[in-house]
Amino acid sequence: MKKHNFSAGPSILPQSVFEKASKAVLNFEDSGLSILEISHRSKEFLNVIEKARTLALQTAGLDDSYEALFLHGGASTQFLSVPYNLLKKKAAYIDTGTWSSKALNEAQLFGNVAIIASSKADGYKYIPKDFNIPPDADYLHITTNNTIYGTQFHDIPNTNIPLVADMSSDIFSRDIDYSKFSLIYAGSQKNLGASGSTMVLVKKDILGKVSRKIPSILDYQNQIQSESMFNTPTTFSVYVNLLVLQWIQEQGGIKNIEKRNKAKAELLYNEIDRNPLVEGYAAKQDRSLMNVSFFLKDPSMQEKFDTLWKNANISGLKGHRNLGGYRASIYNAMPIESVQVLVDVLQEFEKNS
Amino acid sequence: MKKHNFSAGPSILPQSVFEKASKAVLNFEDSGLSILEISHRSKEFLNVIEKARTLALQTAGLDDSYEALFLHGGASTQFLSVPYNLLKKKAAYIDTGTWSSKALNEAQLFGNVAIIASSKADGYKYIPKDFNIPPDADYLHITTNNTIYGTQFHDIPNTNIPLVADMSSDIFSRDIDYSKFSLIYAGSQKNLGASGSTMVLVKKDILGKVSRKIPSILDYQNQIQSESMFNTPTTFSVYVNLLVLQWIQEQGGIKNIEKRNKAKAELLYNEIDRNPLVEGYAAKQDRSLMNVSFFLKDPSMQEKFDTLWKNANISGLKGHRNLGGYRASIYNAMPIESVQVLVDVLQEFEKNS
Repeated sequence: MKKHNFSAGPSILPQSVFEKASKAVLNFEDSGLSILEISHRSKEFLNVIEKARTLALQTAGLDDSYEALFLHGGASTQFLSVPYNLLKKKAAYIDTGTWSSKALNEAQLFGNVAIIASSKADGYKYIPKDFNIPPDADYLHITTNNTIYGTQFHDIPNTNIPLVADMSSDIFSRDIDYSKFSLIYAGSQKNLGASGSTMVLVKKDILGKVSRKIPSILDYQNQIQSESMFNTPTTFSVYVNLLVLQWIQEQGGIKNIEKRNKAKAELLYNEIDRNPLVEGYAAKQDRSLMNVSFFLKDPSMQEKFDTLWKNANISGLKGHRNLGGYRASIYNAMPIESVQVLVDVLQEFEKNS
Repeated sequence: MKKHNFSAGPSILPQSVFEKASKAVLNFEDSGLSILEISHRSKEFLNVIEKARTLALQTAGLDDSYEALFLHGGASTQFLSVPYNLLKKKAAYIDTGTWSSKALNEAQLFGNVAIIASSKADGYKYIPKDFNIPPDADYLHITTNNTIYGTQFHDIPNTNIPLVADMSSDIFSRDIDYSKFSLIYAGSQKNLGASGSTMVLVKKDILGKVSRKIPSILDYQNQIQSESMFNTPTTFSVYVNLLVLQWIQEQGGIKNIEKRNKAKAELLYNEIDRNPLVEGYAAKQDRSLMNVSFFLKDPSMQEKFDTLWKNANISGLKGHRNLGGYRASIYNAMPIESVQVLVDVLQEFEKNS
C-alpha cells in the first residue's frame, strides 16, 4: 500500500513518473536496453537530455539568452561553482537558513562576502525585508525557499546586479518571473526528480568575467560548450528530470501547479492555526508553500501524535535534525488528498487528547 | 529482445541488477515507497549506503585504515579533488590516454606536475614501462585501464610515495593487491553500476597534509566524517552500486570474475589476431581485458561489417570519437555468450568478403 510521503527530499514524485522510470530500467523505449546501460552519447540519450534542457527553459519562460544545464554534484557543488565562476571581488548574500549559510561559507574562499541581511539570530523564522544591495557586488545570492525552517521569499528582490538563487526546494512550484534571475540552480530531489542531477539555468552574458582559472568540471562556459556532457551525466536522474518536466506540462504548466500548491498549503496552515495543540514555526507572512514546519505545544504528547500519523500510513514527517519538531513537505507531486489525511490526523489528535 | 551491449559506459550490468532496480523504483523492499522518494537519512537508505561502503572495502580486500566513499561528480570531479586534497608542491602523473591527460591538466591548477612517462606520441598504443618516480612527489597518479585505446597496466608500479589510481574502467575486474594504492577512484558506469556515483577508496593517513582550504564538497576528510552524506548522495546510483557489489559476491568474488574476464578477452583477441580483415589497436603486452579496440584493415568495408553486427543484435561497438574504429567493451557483466556472438560475426564477415 502506497504511503503518504511528506519527506523533505528525496521526496514524492508523480506515480506516473515512478512507473515510466521503472519500465525504462528494464527496457528503455523498446530499445532492448536498460536506461542504465545506454551510452550518454547514444542518440537515444542525447534526445533525452536535449528535450530536458529545452523543456526546462520553456517551463521557466526563459529565452535563448539562457542555457539550461543538468550537472552533477547537488546544490552543494553549486555553492562552490557560483563563486568560482562569478565572484571577482565581492558578493552579497542573504542568510535565511542552513543552506544559504553553507553557500556563503564556500563563497568566502573566493573573495569578500557581504552578508547584507540575516534572520539567524531569530532562528531563521522569517525572511529579512530590510537590506541594501551593494551596487558594486558581483552578484546577490538568495535561497528562495528554506526547507528546514519553512520560509520562502514571496517577493523577489529587485536589483541591478546579477541575482543568483538556490531554488532547490521550490523550483517550478510557482509562477514567478524567472528572468529576474541571472542564475538559478536546483538539486533535483524535490520538485525535479531523483537525487544526483542539478539543474542550472544561467544567463550566458554573466559568464567569462573572472580572471581565475576555473576547474573544467565547475566551469559553466565549459559545460555549456559540452551541452552538459563534459563528463558522463547522471543519465538516469536526467531521464527522471525529463519525465517530471513532461508531467508539469501535462498538468497545464506551473500556473496550475501553483494553484494546487496554494490550496494544499492553505488547507494545512489553516488547520495548524486552528488546532490548539500545535503551532507553526515560520512567520506567517513568509510561510513556505513547500515545507510546513510545526511543533507540538506540549512535547510530552509526541509519542501519541507519532502513533497517530504512522497509523494513517504517513511517512517522512519528522523535522530536520537542526530544528526538531515536524515538517510536512508538500511538493508539486503531493496530492491534496494526502494533505487532507494529515489534517484529519491533526484533528483526531485534538479530539483524543 | 535483449541486445548484446558492448557499450563503453554507461554499459551492461547484470540482468538481475536491472530487475531488482526496476522493482525498487516502484516499491523499495516492500516499504510502500519508491527508492527515488525515500530520504537519504532514512534507516532504509542508511542501510544501503553502509552496506555498500562495507562491501566495497571487503571486495577490495582493504582493512579499516581505508574508507570507502560514494560521491557525486564522476571521475572528472576526482581529477580535481585529488590535487586539492593531496598536492602540496609536486605530483607525478603517467600519461596513458585522454583521461590521464585530463586528470593531469586539472592537477596543474594546484602545483607542479611531473609527467614522468607518456605514450601520447605513439597514439597511446602502449603502457610506458620505463620511468623514474621522483621520491619527493606527493603522489603518483595512474589510469589503470584506458577505455579509449584499450590498454591496461598489468604490472602496478612499485613506489614509496602514495599511489593514486583512476580505476573507472577496470575496478573489481581482477584480483590485484588493492592495498598497493593509497587512493582509488572509479566512476560507477562501467563495472560498478549506473552513472552518477563515484566510488573512492582512500587510505586515511594520506589526508590532512595540505595547507590550502579545501571546498567542503571536495574535502575527503569532510566526506569521511559525513559518511558520504555531506549532501544528498545520488541515492538510486548508490543502491545500484550495492546491487552490483552483492552480485560480485554471488559470483564468488573478483577471483572468479577475473577468470571469466580472461576467458572472454582471450576469445576475442584470438579472433582479432587470426582474422585477416581486422587488426587490434593496443600493443599486445598491454591489451586491456575490458576494452578491445580494433580496426578494419580495409576501411571501405565498414558498411558491410556494420550491417553484420547490427543484424546480430549487437550494440555499442563504435570506437570512441577520439580514435575511431571499433571498441568492444567486455566488462564484468558481459557474458561470454555475447562475446561469442561477436566472434561469430567477425568470422562471418571474413567468409562473406
